[in-house]
Amino acid sequence: MAPFIVFEGIDGSGKSTQIELLSQSLIANGHDPLVTQEPDGTPLGEAAGRWLRGYPNLSPVTELLLFEAARAEHVEKVIQPAIEAGRIVLSDRFAPSTMAYQSYGRGLDASIVEDLNRLAADGLKPTLTVFLDAPIEAARSRIEPDSLDVLESQRQEFHQRVRQGYLEMAANNPETWLTIDGTLPVDTIAEQIWARLQPLL
Amino acid sequence: MAPFIVFEGIDGSGKSTQIELLSQSLIANGHDPLVTQEPDGTPLGEAAGRWLRGYPNLSPVTELLLFEAARAEHVEKVIQPAIEAGRIVLSDRFAPSTMAYQSYGRGLDASIVEDLNRLAADGLKPTLTVFLDAPIEAARSRIEPDSLDVLESQRQEFHQRVRQGYLEMAANNPETWLTIDGTLPVDTIAEQIWARLQPLL
Repeated sequence: MAPFIVFEGIDGSGKSTQIELLSQSLIANGHDPLVTQEPDGTPLGEAAGRWLRGYPNLSPVTELLLFEAARAEHVEKVIQPAIEAGRIVLSDRFAPSTMAYQSYGRGLDASIVEDLNRLAADGLKPTLTVFLDAPIEAARSRIEPDSLDVLESQRQEFHQRVRQGYLEMAANNPETWLTIDGTLPVDTIAEQIWARLQPLL
Repeated sequence: MAPFIVFEGIDGSGKSTQIELLSQSLIANGHDPLVTQEPDGTPLGEAAGRWLRGYPNLSPVTELLLFEAARAEHVEKVIQPAIEAGRIVLSDRFAPSTMAYQSYGRGLDASIVEDLNRLAADGLKPTLTVFLDAPIEAARSRIEPDSLDVLESQRQEFHQRVRQGYLEMAANNPETWLTIDGTLPVDTIAEQIWARLQPLL
């Protein structure tokens, strides 16, 4: 199976820029990567995403279950078939987002989130998780106020908890996580990701 | 808190008729019942229901997570507030449907379904579950082919397993389940439900 590379970090941390750069590098090197994202990677996920963004008073549990439903569909219909067909998959967010936002951020029990992450991912684990770490202020300055989604528009302490969650997961999984300072120049970050990816290709 | 009455049984077993009759009897006796249903009892649930009916190739796990998301929203926004306000709630389907259809029917692990049912219901348990039992053939004859939904249109063995699930749950919970032969005359069924409900009012 081809590598499954997940990009994590708070909104504004530069994930989409790096995914685009990595995708271009992979194509230039003869690969045929599949770029996808959560929760919008499937029609069901798009519908779930519209709900999650447009209906801000969903309870944390409802939100969790909806994200996991979108993930189960995403894994089964998009990610799994692509990696089985030999394509490198780059996903903007995956299970760690749920742990960071719904557990560290919203306070849901970590073991419940872990169980649901496992159920929805159906055994699939990222080969590498690239975590772009950026102080909350740096990330926010890159986002136009209009484009702030529901989760993003919430208070700063929430994002501090989310960041803390990412930092802990990265520290606990050094072999499968790559943490990069998201305030570094874009090209420097891209080089670090490319260097780490080499042995996996 | 007011009683929370759940109606269960395969499609075509006569649930909606009995809910309507019970609602009328309750109103005639000075109550103000709330009649609701799963998954369509909330705007989110309606959207989930459209997906579940219109997109037949969802995996059993995705289906499960979507039903549970709809349930979490339904409990928090509709059922819980109504019973706390003293209204008797009559729900067409609840957690037992997920156990019957997704576990007995689709084969998902019962403990996973149980955990998710508990998570989504947030501790809420039906005061009484009315199970209208009908042989598969009797139930099917009451449904127009056009109105068969995705689950309903599936093969007969599936419905046999679902019915078996209901029968086992009813047998294991005699104090909170009322099983009625769904092939009895409508008025006879309504009388049996009304008699059982009296001590709870």
